[in-house]
Amino acid sequence: MSDSPRPGPDGGPGFPAARPTPLATMLAVVAAGGVVGALARAGTLAAFPYRPTAFPWSTFAVNVVGCLLIGVLMVLLTRVWTDRPLLRPFLGVGVLGGFTTFSTYVLDVQQALRAGVPGTALAYLGATVLAALGAVWLGDAATGWLLDRTRAGGSAR
Amino acid sequence: MSDSPRPGPDGGPGFPAARPTPLATMLAVVAAGGVVGALARAGTLAAFPYRPTAFPWSTFAVNVVGCLLIGVLMVLLTRVWTDRPLLRPFLGVGVLGGFTTFSTYVLDVQQALRAGVPGTALAYLGATVLAALGAVWLGDAATGWLLDRTRAGGSAR
Repeated sequence: MSDSPRPGPDGGPGFPAARPTPLATMLAVVAAGGVVGALARAGTLAAFPYRPTAFPWSTFAVNVVGCLLIGVLMVLLTRVWTDRPLLRPFLGVGVLGGFTTFSTYVLDVQQALRAGVPGTALAYLGATVLAALGAVWLGDAATGWLLDRTRAGGSAR
Repeated sequence: MSDSPRPGPDGGPGFPAARPTPLATMLAVVAAGGVVGALARAGTLAAFPYRPTAFPWSTFAVNVVGCLLIGVLMVLLTRVWTDRPLLRPFLGVGVLGGFTTFSTYVLDVQQALRAGVPGTALAYLGATVLAALGAVWLGDAATGWLLDRTRAGGSAR
């Protein structure tokens, strides 16, 4: 989350070179993000529970929103927050990796099949993948467009 | 999720009835599980990194193994660990929910498409879903079969 891993502009050969983030810091940051993501997911699913025969809207929403946010995040990490080495492990690996879930998604499909609603199972199976792919694309495109627009506005001044 | 909300066999009318798990305990257990799951996933992906043009084997493995384990877990929770109210929030919601990821899966697909390998993107997209569904079914069926076999062996003695 700082410039520390890179030598400063005046960092000559006498200075220590790039100092990578210590492993312990990286693990702590991933763990902290994992707590945030898991609690946010558990809270959402507890607030909007669903029966095995129903479309699992809350897990659908968790996964699609998580994919929208990872699309936004990747653009920001590449174009804006290029000197924040802890943001990707915290927000990307920890928070969004912990927020979204594949195990609950697949369990939902299995339980819908077992509950005798194969149409719901298939609709949920396909809709989640399609909506999540659309969401990551939208997050990426919209963030890129906004950044371009902001910078064009800035340079026109 | 458990028998705990029901009074014990000797719990007469004079005893306090169902005592649900306190919310703070539940949140702490989900958070602790989220730490374990996120670190296990981050460790796996760090140990087996992949390029955007390659098949993302480590994320594939994380999601498929997580789905195998959720299949095993759900049978154990339903048939064996019926009086352990914290195991599902810890292992299911926390550990496996935090271990598996939908955001990295979808990001991998997007990056493979962007890297110009649509065949890899589509193969990974489909193979993950199919293998994960097969894994949850296998975990469920194998655990059920083993439990039946163990119990049949026990009652034959």
